[in-house]
Amino acid sequence: METAMATTPADGAYRTTERTVPTRASERASYDRDLVHSILDGAYVCHLGFVRDGAPVVLPTLYGRVGDRLYVHGSTGSRPLRMAGRDEPGLEVCLTVTHVDGLVLARSAFHHSVNYRSVMVHGTARQVADPEEKRTALDALVDHVVPGRSYDSRQANARELAATAVLRLDLDEVSAKCRTGGPSDDPEDRSLPHWTGVVPLTHGYGTPIPANDLDPTVAMPDYLSVL
Amino acid sequence: METAMATTPADGAYRTTERTVPTRASERASYDRDLVHSILDGAYVCHLGFVRDGAPVVLPTLYGRVGDRLYVHGSTGSRPLRMAGRDEPGLEVCLTVTHVDGLVLARSAFHHSVNYRSVMVHGTARQVADPEEKRTALDALVDHVVPGRSYDSRQANARELAATAVLRLDLDEVSAKCRTGGPSDDPEDRSLPHWTGVVPLTHGYGTPIPANDLDPTVAMPDYLSVL
Repeated sequence: METAMATTPADGAYRTTERTVPTRASERASYDRDLVHSILDGAYVCHLGFVRDGAPVVLPTLYGRVGDRLYVHGSTGSRPLRMAGRDEPGLEVCLTVTHVDGLVLARSAFHHSVNYRSVMVHGTARQVADPEEKRTALDALVDHVVPGRSYDSRQANARELAATAVLRLDLDEVSAKCRTGGPSDDPEDRSLPHWTGVVPLTHGYGTPIPANDLDPTVAMPDYLSVL
Repeated sequence: METAMATTPADGAYRTTERTVPTRASERASYDRDLVHSILDGAYVCHLGFVRDGAPVVLPTLYGRVGDRLYVHGSTGSRPLRMAGRDEPGLEVCLTVTHVDGLVLARSAFHHSVNYRSVMVHGTARQVADPEEKRTALDALVDHVVPGRSYDSRQANARELAATAVLRLDLDEVSAKCRTGGPSDDPEDRSLPHWTGVVPLTHGYGTPIPANDLDPTVAMPDYLSVL
């Protein structure tokens, strides 16, 4: 997929390829490793795209990150996991994570938008065969939901490990795209009588709800009180 | 794509097809029209999957709904819009919308999950050629961001209409999938000493931020104060 457009990365940046350089709004694109990681680490669900019988499928799924590796998991019987079986050449995927940060209200309908931060990863996902890497990946998936949680839960047993397939996707062909700031109306629209600005979207946590069968002597852990 | 599994829909339900019946956790699937619409109407961004040069692409993008039609838009120069050009047979897509409602902490790492509501739409997206339908679609896209906003902004002019392509995707092969409720630990794990329950995720709106060049005599509209 590399073309003449491909570049050698600067320190701390991902390389660019023909498909990570957007045709539109390329000033919004970034290949900064820290930015990419922060966008990935701050979301709970990614949208995993793959091709099945020639048609696209976009599956919302949990994920975890260990350095420059992303992991997704699923039942060994699920479609994408079977398609990326150990003896197969891997599954071509596009994994996208998006945060919507604000609603951008311009005076013109045309310039309405949202402020967002997204990451798109292209690559081949492959099943993890090494048991150590699989355990590390599963810990990362749990710690992605709540940091520190993998130390405070029962680790997967042999039966669960056998039933779970883990796919690895290396962060190599990857880009971030972000929009920030206010509306960008055309100069000739500035005198129009419409309110214009940004409505921020906020995200937070409600009070944790203990399971019905939780032993009441088990205290809520510190890693939840700091959420 | 229809197989023997396909069914005639009940009143108010979408038909099922081989690819809208999940192979995993099928008890979480629903074809209820009202549920599908409410999930679609409550999110700002969808993830649009299509195939380009044989590889999947998953693009976050705004959308609007008019009855059983979804609309996405973009520059006439953007990749998916060009690929679904008026003279083409259309673009095979999978459009997915996901809400994450809570973090599900089980005693076992294996049963960690999130509560979510998602909709997946399969179909062929086609460029809208009819000018009236295009205007309706663009209004729906703006009103999806803030209901009522299309009446309080300058409508697209001829130049903007010419620069904007709109794709229509009919809601026909569509399903919802939801997880609700607490963790589902195995009975033999119930005496483990780990806290277990659900951490709800909350979503809201911050105080609207007026654009730098907003005339201070323009009041904030009512449709923003009720957000």
